[in-house]
Amino acid sequence: MEGYKRVYRLLFVGGDGRQLRAANRAAENGAKISVLGFSEENTQKMPESVSRLENINDREFDYTAVVLPLPYTTDGENINAPQMKRKLPVTELFQKLPAECCVLAGKCDSTLRKLAESKNITLIDYFDREDLQILNAIPTAEGAIQIAMQEAPFTLHSSKCLIIGNGRIGKILAKMLHGIGAEVTVAARKRKDIVQVFAYGYKSISTGELYDNIGGYDIIFNTAPSLILDFDLLSKTRRDCLVIDLASKPGGVDFETARKMGIKVIWALSLPGKVAPHTAGDIIGKTILSILSELEAR
Amino acid sequence: MEGYKRVYRLLFVGGDGRQLRAANRAAENGAKISVLGFSEENTQKMPESVSRLENINDREFDYTAVVLPLPYTTDGENINAPQMKRKLPVTELFQKLPAECCVLAGKCDSTLRKLAESKNITLIDYFDREDLQILNAIPTAEGAIQIAMQEAPFTLHSSKCLIIGNGRIGKILAKMLHGIGAEVTVAARKRKDIVQVFAYGYKSISTGELYDNIGGYDIIFNTAPSLILDFDLLSKTRRDCLVIDLASKPGGVDFETARKMGIKVIWALSLPGKVAPHTAGDIIGKTILSILSELEAR
Amino acid sequence: MEGYKRVYRLLFVGGDGRQLRAANRAAENGAKISVLGFSEENTQKMPESVSRLENINDREFDYTAVVLPLPYTTDGENINAPQMKRKLPVTELFQKLPAECCVLAGKCDSTLRKLAESKNITLIDYFDREDLQILNAIPTAEGAIQIAMQEAPFTLHSSKCLIIGNGRIGKILAKMLHGIGAEVTVAARKRKDIVQVFAYGYKSISTGELYDNIGGYDIIFNTAPSLILDFDLLSKTRRDCLVIDLASKPGGVDFETARKMGIKVIWALSLPGKVAPHTAGDIIGKTILSILSELEAR
Amino acid sequence: MEGYKRVYRLLFVGGDGRQLRAANRAAENGAKISVLGFSEENTQKMPESVSRLENINDREFDYTAVVLPLPYTTDGENINAPQMKRKLPVTELFQKLPAECCVLAGKCDSTLRKLAESKNITLIDYFDREDLQILNAIPTAEGAIQIAMQEAPFTLHSSKCLIIGNGRIGKILAKMLHGIGAEVTVAARKRKDIVQVFAYGYKSISTGELYDNIGGYDIIFNTAPSLILDFDLLSKTRRDCLVIDLASKPGGVDFETARKMGIKVIWALSLPGKVAPHTAGDIIGKTILSILSELEAR
Repeated sequence: MEGYKRVYRLLFVGGDGRQLRAANRAAENGAKISVLGFSEENTQKMPESVSRLENINDREFDYTAVVLPLPYTTDGENINAPQMKRKLPVTELFQKLPAECCVLAGKCDSTLRKLAESKNITLIDYFDREDLQILNAIPTAEGAIQIAMQEAPFTLHSSKCLIIGNGRIGKILAKMLHGIGAEVTVAARKRKDIVQVFAYGYKSISTGELYDNIGGYDIIFNTAPSLILDFDLLSKTRRDCLVIDLASKPGGVDFETARKMGIKVIWALSLPGKVAPHTAGDIIGKTILSILSELEAR
Repeated sequence: MEGYKRVYRLLFVGGDGRQLRAANRAAENGAKISVLGFSEENTQKMPESVSRLENINDREFDYTAVVLPLPYTTDGENINAPQMKRKLPVTELFQKLPAECCVLAGKCDSTLRKLAESKNITLIDYFDREDLQILNAIPTAEGAIQIAMQEAPFTLHSSKCLIIGNGRIGKILAKMLHGIGAEVTVAARKRKDIVQVFAYGYKSISTGELYDNIGGYDIIFNTAPSLILDFDLLSKTRRDCLVIDLASKPGGVDFETARKMGIKVIWALSLPGKVAPHTAGDIIGKTILSILSELEAR
Repeated sequence: MEGYKRVYRLLFVGGDGRQLRAANRAAENGAKISVLGFSEENTQKMPESVSRLENINDREFDYTAVVLPLPYTTDGENINAPQMKRKLPVTELFQKLPAECCVLAGKCDSTLRKLAESKNITLIDYFDREDLQILNAIPTAEGAIQIAMQEAPFTLHSSKCLIIGNGRIGKILAKMLHGIGAEVTVAARKRKDIVQVFAYGYKSISTGELYDNIGGYDIIFNTAPSLILDFDLLSKTRRDCLVIDLASKPGGVDFETARKMGIKVIWALSLPGKVAPHTAGDIIGKTILSILSELEAR
Repeated sequence: MEGYKRVYRLLFVGGDGRQLRAANRAAENGAKISVLGFSEENTQKMPESVSRLENINDREFDYTAVVLPLPYTTDGENINAPQMKRKLPVTELFQKLPAECCVLAGKCDSTLRKLAESKNITLIDYFDREDLQILNAIPTAEGAIQIAMQEAPFTLHSSKCLIIGNGRIGKILAKMLHGIGAEVTVAARKRKDIVQVFAYGYKSISTGELYDNIGGYDIIFNTAPSLILDFDLLSKTRRDCLVIDLASKPGGVDFETARKMGIKVIWALSLPGKVAPHTAGDIIGKTILSILSELEAR
């Protein structure tokens, strides 16, 4: 979509196939790519121009940005690099980075922010970006639909689906479910969301009305980031209703109560990387290019 | 959608059929309605419970709210009341209103705000409400489509339509045009809008790329509230392209230049009341009920 | 879509802008075009390669096909040629045509068929072609929607629309109305149509159930070619319901009864040429090219 | 949808959960149901009015129809009754049926037809019905989409999907894929199908053009019942393209060649019963009721 004028030099450190895909995408857009933390086998399908490093040579460091994976760490200590033979502590990596360089990482925490600050490194969390969040809503919604199709003994077509929440995921999920032929109702708190749902042609319901209506759905998708499906609502839900919770921890469903009631709940987290790793990698790649282009425009 | 518990007593002063429709809608929801500024003929289809006043009896004033039309005045002096025989100056009306009452009006200006303030009257501009704006985007988009159908010698189906702006109107217009089978491209400035357009399945273009691409469209709908189609862009636009400008004054098109170039531009303002007065009235009615319900909940 | 290998030489005789558009389209596909029955003014936007004839020179007749308009005659005697100064009797034209040539015409009748047969001329009615009928359903459906938008004081969005008939026009009309946000019900006689409507996500109703349900619609579109809306059904229709009849003569509505009952009925015939003449001309052009390509393949 | 006036007495013999679901549906519509060939466990969720038989009591035979499963046999000898302890030979069943009764069965073959004929039994194959075929296209299309989602490492949204064939399954599959946001192309042989695909807003391609274009797709769904993807076409297909063949035996893909080329092909048969058994059972139930209603109307 955009024209990237400068040649970016990017070092991707760690991650799985998604980061290689992101690196590939950047390479296709003309960036010069180095990767660290991947085996020869994993990188053999990459363009020849990509150089695979075993170590950071801090003397010749000349990168526009260093790209860390999403999330940048899974254990709080080492870079998340499942394809790397040895562990690479985050602190070790940052020692090798020159001051005032630029690091792009997913799900930055205060530890990382302090490390970056101490060397005056520009640290940008690409997972925080609204464009990435919107794009990630696409594989998340598709993943939710895939799970629903796998679990439900009936078709989504003409099934009664309730989506709780009219945010990024709720909106695209509503569109896709409607596109398959489901009867979509969206529950929202704010009046502006309720009328927007109406404008888009789906049924709407205010969260306050859920208690009296929740028994009428075949599938409930929760996208709201708080405990919505509590004891009261679950007790009015049909026992054969399928519940798919897309809310991040602690989740939007009282799982224990649902289990006791015999209501099947699937808590589906981090769907993009699981159901569509290529797309997930492409999204990271696009977002990184978009960040670099904005940095350049400053 | 909602349950309105209290019995609202509403006085509708002035306006056209839309206000009667709004009054009707409120009556259907249980409100007790009086109207002022309408002839007997105009009100004969209203429910019997509606009382038609000739004057405000300020001694027996007992209304939850007084509802003024959209816009409340067209000449800056009198209430906008085309069906009323005599003129009703805004100041005269406000003299008769008791202090601390509640007035709902469309397109309030500083004059009205001062008048209200002087008597400690609660003044709410229902045209400012996001829910009304979202709902009004529906008849606005349909009106734009109606104009396009009337003016274009080709079908919208498989025509190349450009929508400038991804706001409330742009979004619903894109959905409807796509639904008819048009090839929809949305131009937006912000990256978040560009990816959202992509997520919804339309083509997207950044406004910066318009200059190189604007020659490829059969119809251009402008929804952005600033001068977008200037000399430069118009000079790259096809002479047989139909331009429909939905931006409020001063409009988004250099009309004079377009005229000289022979490009047909239709500046379509205030569409809801023109193309779908019943729907426009219903929207005012719904919004008023929603405002009253929120006031009550405080 | 296809590659047309041979150079077709086509003579377009009579018709309005649609035939010129069809001629243009054929020219764009490489055909060599002559036109007869058009003024210089009308043809000045045509490519230079198009030759405008005043008369048929029967000595140098060398056309792949002669193309007559849709319909080929409006008075049963002369070629339908509104832009021609003098009348051109059909018999006169056929005298000048060599035996065994090929004529493509719209709405052939027995008179024309006999004329062609007498000279062993291959006569093909392009209006009979299923591909033209399917393509024509697009401007017909859009025209019906345009009329509905013009006439109804409410938006099609969220209005209750009944389509009688699940044929070519009914199908595309349902898709477009649904795309705008209308609540679409399709009435059909056959069970296979009823389940197909269900599969496509619209409500369905069997014609036998119309009597009990017809009072619930805001707009009724009739596409069935027989008198459906008779006294009984009309008497159950709401007085403020808008009826748009797309059925060719004698129409699908008891117009006189509807008039007496105060139900507004619009009988909309030959919509493609009226609402989208460019598209209508393109469709004729495409169909002619498709016929020629099939003749060639034999 | 319909009103079933007479009380049908139906005996369901054999099959799996789908037949129980069909029986249930008939019961909900007022039919009196007996079942044979199901364990107590399997039938415990059925309404109390359903009677479970261990044998056919031919003396008290009083059924409107006997319903056999889909397919009625899997081994050519016994009724397809996986939940039955002993085998029930088709001939044994037919000995117990009175002459001139009515049998509804799925996938009747000549053996069954002869058996029925010999006793003057009315035999109707509900799998032959167009309404069942159209309804079955819904779970078939959803099943194909589920498989595509499971197998593809990218989202269907914005993927390039080719559907070969514009029949019942092709049509609904195109609609659903488009609804999810895929870029849909439909390949068809007949011009009427090509223009219909265009009318519905998808890209179309004639089968003759496949050879030059097949390399551009991410997923290919074959619905055409003949060998389309032969050596020539496969050799132009991308190695990472996912092929889902929905054609019944012998299938539409040269599987062996695809395997050698490293192209992943999934041959997905009998999807309704696999991916949505409840819906599949409901469809059988609906079709049976529809058949009975037509028999009654004769």
